[in-house]
Amino acid sequence: MERVLEQKFTIEYQYNVFFTKGLFSLGNNLFKNFLTVHSNPGFKQKILFVIDEGFMDAHPNLAEQIRNYFMESEDFILASEPLVIPGGEICKNDPTCLDNIIQAVDQYGIDRHSYIVGIGGGAILDLVGFAATISHRGIKHIRIPTTVLSQNDSGVGVKNSVNFKGKKNFLGTFAPPKAVFNDFEFLETLDERSWIAGVSEAIKVALIKDLSFYEWIENNAEKIKERNSSEMEDLIFRCADKHLEHIRNGDPFELGSSRPLDFGHWSAHKLEQMTDFEVLHGEAVSIGISIDVLYSYLIGNITREEAFRVVELMNKLGLPIYHPILDTEEARFILLSGLLDFQEHLGGKLTIVLLEKLGVGKDYHHLDYLLVLKTLDLLKNFCQDQNPVYEAS
Amino acid sequence: MERVLEQKFTIEYQYNVFFTKGLFSLGNNLFKNFLTVHSNPGFKQKILFVIDEGFMDAHPNLAEQIRNYFMESEDFILASEPLVIPGGEICKNDPTCLDNIIQAVDQYGIDRHSYIVGIGGGAILDLVGFAATISHRGIKHIRIPTTVLSQNDSGVGVKNSVNFKGKKNFLGTFAPPKAVFNDFEFLETLDERSWIAGVSEAIKVALIKDLSFYEWIENNAEKIKERNSSEMEDLIFRCADKHLEHIRNGDPFELGSSRPLDFGHWSAHKLEQMTDFEVLHGEAVSIGISIDVLYSYLIGNITREEAFRVVELMNKLGLPIYHPILDTEEARFILLSGLLDFQEHLGGKLTIVLLEKLGVGKDYHHLDYLLVLKTLDLLKNFCQDQNPVYEAS
Repeated sequence: MERVLEQKFTIEYQYNVFFTKGLFSLGNNLFKNFLTVHSNPGFKQKILFVIDEGFMDAHPNLAEQIRNYFMESEDFILASEPLVIPGGEICKNDPTCLDNIIQAVDQYGIDRHSYIVGIGGGAILDLVGFAATISHRGIKHIRIPTTVLSQNDSGVGVKNSVNFKGKKNFLGTFAPPKAVFNDFEFLETLDERSWIAGVSEAIKVALIKDLSFYEWIENNAEKIKERNSSEMEDLIFRCADKHLEHIRNGDPFELGSSRPLDFGHWSAHKLEQMTDFEVLHGEAVSIGISIDVLYSYLIGNITREEAFRVVELMNKLGLPIYHPILDTEEARFILLSGLLDFQEHLGGKLTIVLLEKLGVGKDYHHLDYLLVLKTLDLLKNFCQDQNPVYEAS
Repeated sequence: MERVLEQKFTIEYQYNVFFTKGLFSLGNNLFKNFLTVHSNPGFKQKILFVIDEGFMDAHPNLAEQIRNYFMESEDFILASEPLVIPGGEICKNDPTCLDNIIQAVDQYGIDRHSYIVGIGGGAILDLVGFAATISHRGIKHIRIPTTVLSQNDSGVGVKNSVNFKGKKNFLGTFAPPKAVFNDFEFLETLDERSWIAGVSEAIKVALIKDLSFYEWIENNAEKIKERNSSEMEDLIFRCADKHLEHIRNGDPFELGSSRPLDFGHWSAHKLEQMTDFEVLHGEAVSIGISIDVLYSYLIGNITREEAFRVVELMNKLGLPIYHPILDTEEARFILLSGLLDFQEHLGGKLTIVLLEKLGVGKDYHHLDYLLVLKTLDLLKNFCQDQNPVYEAS
């Protein structure tokens, strides 16, 4: 006799992405108000801050600022001094960084009604999100991204991760934050490279989703490069908006097989590994976009002019479109193996987004290795004709 | 200028709990049919089995049976020989067990469209669920519980976990399986203790949710104790049904502060730790229920007769209702500290379920330590008057 019980339920996820300046200045009540609205009257909820070491160095008063900000709070207490953790891939590669956060959760009695707040670049936010999500089966986490890249892309999304024995993002979950606070003032201390690297994710989303946004970036490339805040703020806002829209209208937890926002990413992930993360993620994405754009041209979807218009935009912004590590045959072979890693991470069928035309992405399930190699030659030649950007960095 | 973007989406979760016999016999197509229905035509999906060592020892032909079962499958291939992992708390305490599964995911190229299938007791299923959920941000997992306890309770639910430095379930997530297969034949090799220990979760759910189910257990206690399969199958089915109903109608991912199915559990978790897991979870729950039932009597919610009716049911079934480790004052103090652990894991406010009356649970936010101590005295006296069950085990 066989019997069956059916289980079915839905979970609603909701969070806001706030854009502000001077998040922890005493006059700015945005963060406090958020916490008050979500507080549990009569209980002091704990907040544990985990801060990117590099960002902390550039903002030496931050810990004190945070302490003052919460000084008179009735409903919230700081669990401890902020945990300071090295940013970048280091913190995702080194298991002790994850362990330190979990240890702090235990030591300071951070519970499911408390918050862990990550302040830093995408890597720190990935790590903090993962640590929070697996501790006590899910402590609430808040993200405060401090780079262009994390403010407009990964930081506003629903993913977290750490690396496992060098394999990027091998471990992680889908777990929306409770809130994201994008403080534009935090971008002021970014170095030139990081400032511009984050723009590539905006170009990515514009190319596959929104031609008018792409054209806006072209028209404002100069100002963005010259660190004009107002244009950068608009770029981040629009990019974050597109990213959020894509998540909610698509497949938020990627239960299907396509991840259309991964345009330009199959090669980017590999390139980061190959250069030992000397190439920033945004830079790798810029090169990855260049490859995929030229590939889209080689299979006849867009014209040569359109393809090089994109490559030139990135070149003009100061983003790399090629890397000399790709000069050797072995390296190119390793790059191509990135397609296999990508397939495995996604599962089953390979799905790569290419351009159907400028502003519209399209899924493909096969890439011709020889054509990929040809894009590399085209990009290398382009660099040799121009000022080779990669040598400047 | 402050701006805000709102993100909101829902995710639907669905899975079936199948009840069968001889799951891997060649004539039983239940499992194969499930896989076929969920297959991705044209792709061979991989299946990685992770099996409880103790269960494997009791079923030495299992690996071969599984191999034969999948031999002629068009759509599925076994990723490797089954991973065999020690069951019980050991596998949740030892980080290398988690690591071994993740390692296998990497080694055998298990992707998000493949399955990890756990076969074993609750601990193995907790571990496998956690490993699957965090690998590649979520590989599908299937649960095949092999104990009464896991078939009627934890195995059909949505939680997974491992321990962290001895702290039970400190790490974990909420992640529904893709399916659960309850094979009643797997229960035949259970020893006496494990057979009966699982009944306590049924008594728990009946006491707080369903008086008629509770009375059914009372009326069938003899048969259940004598290992009458048919009554045990009905008990498991009804208990699993109640558990699933509670999850979907309540707060599946425990985003609020109450977990009413945790009746009898605050002390049970502590007792397991205190006895180094010599006491089985179901046995600890039986003692925990006894404490909470007597507490419900002491605060006037139920009569003395009703309270001891429950205690006597458990005694009659051969379930322990007290443990001699609780004879000392220090031990009782440690037991009471379980309330704090429980509060911390839940977060914020302590919420304990007690009985409003038989068949109806009610949330409480405070327990009187002296009354808890009194329940222990009552239980100890009860045991001294009867045949002390705990000495038999």
